[in-house]
Amino acid sequence: MSSRLEPATRHYDEKLQHILKTSAKIFAEKGFHRTSVRDISRATKMSLAGLYYYFTTKEELLYLIQERCFLTLLQRWEQASGAEMDVRARIGLFAANHLSFFWHNTHEMKVMAHEDESLNGEFADKILVLKRRYVKVLMDLVEEWQQQEGGKGVDLRVATFSLFGMMNWTYTWYQAKRDLPLPQLIEQMLRIFFFGVLKAGQIDERWFISKPSREKDTFSLWQNIP
Amino acid sequence: MSSRLEPATRHYDEKLQHILKTSAKIFAEKGFHRTSVRDISRATKMSLAGLYYYFTTKEELLYLIQERCFLTLLQRWEQASGAEMDVRARIGLFAANHLSFFWHNTHEMKVMAHEDESLNGEFADKILVLKRRYVKVLMDLVEEWQQQEGGKGVDLRVATFSLFGMMNWTYTWYQAKRDLPLPQLIEQMLRIFFFGVLKAGQIDERWFISKPSREKDTFSLWQNIP
Repeated sequence: MSSRLEPATRHYDEKLQHILKTSAKIFAEKGFHRTSVRDISRATKMSLAGLYYYFTTKEELLYLIQERCFLTLLQRWEQASGAEMDVRARIGLFAANHLSFFWHNTHEMKVMAHEDESLNGEFADKILVLKRRYVKVLMDLVEEWQQQEGGKGVDLRVATFSLFGMMNWTYTWYQAKRDLPLPQLIEQMLRIFFFGVLKAGQIDERWFISKPSREKDTFSLWQNIP
Repeated sequence: MSSRLEPATRHYDEKLQHILKTSAKIFAEKGFHRTSVRDISRATKMSLAGLYYYFTTKEELLYLIQERCFLTLLQRWEQASGAEMDVRARIGLFAANHLSFFWHNTHEMKVMAHEDESLNGEFADKILVLKRRYVKVLMDLVEEWQQQEGGKGVDLRVATFSLFGMMNWTYTWYQAKRDLPLPQLIEQMLRIFFFGVLKAGQIDERWFISKPSREKDTFSLWQNIP
């Protein structure tokens, strides 16, 4: 999480990022189990010995990809969200952060969705901790909002995972040429989540424009993640 | 679709069902690509020659599983839904049919979600036709309902796939010991879909009890699919 890395560390990190990004693409296309470290060596143009400097097993590589995703999502969320924003706006920001991250990292999204059970032991445990921490952010927000608005009678887990489900299912149906661009897609999903299909279209557009807590938020949120 | 099969056909069908069900379980656990026909032979206690009487390649087997799922979903839907029901109740029935089918066929659900891209050529084309037919049922219902209620401003594809996403994501988070039983889960998701998180809990319970179009509907819908 430190923003100033030493030159050597930065080089290590850039190399590792390159490996993780390339591996995520191959895992997404071929599946984790059908991919060999040799495939990764070919695609990254690195020797096996060079690769094993960064990870010791293919499982560790999958772990590093998933860890990086959750840490990035959490870090982006912490940077974007401000406590002074109202809870509704924070839910909107969370959704925008989540969907835009996976928008620009489709391979990682597929790996996260499909290879959820390919990790075992300590790797699986560590990812579970991160995943729970991430889910809890949204769940706490939904709970806070329900309490504030008196929105009782909806199960917190069903509500939280319904929003995740709406967003995470996107990769199975979305067609860039046919469907709405990302900002409108996020707005539509928030409308449905907050107001339901029937009322969703009647809510004033201004409702969905959140007050940015810091100047650069609106921009940084839509930035392409390398 | 015929309800009275000749004895020989029925035997064929029962054997095939046994193979499909067993294979779906192995595909769900090991993944399609890591499963061999030999694995299926072991699990079904059938010889390779016996198996190849029912399918010619592993791809065909995956195709048959997916085809059976979509045909069963469509058939159950056609049996349960009555044109005399109002559109809101028909959306509810569609959701109940979808979720309860996968509830009792978790392996098939996982195979459908994970091995979506494992089919190629003619098999993939045929499944795509069925999938589009199935999706169109819900999309037409949502459209009809929007027109009836004047619910404008929500993109039809986003609305339709949001409901699919909410339901299909269930397999990643649902814990039987912790979460609501199936009928309540369906009701909660419909509440969120129709009214949004805020209002969802305030709607009278009777709103969600649909008039069954035929006597046995309510029961048959919850029946376990073999």
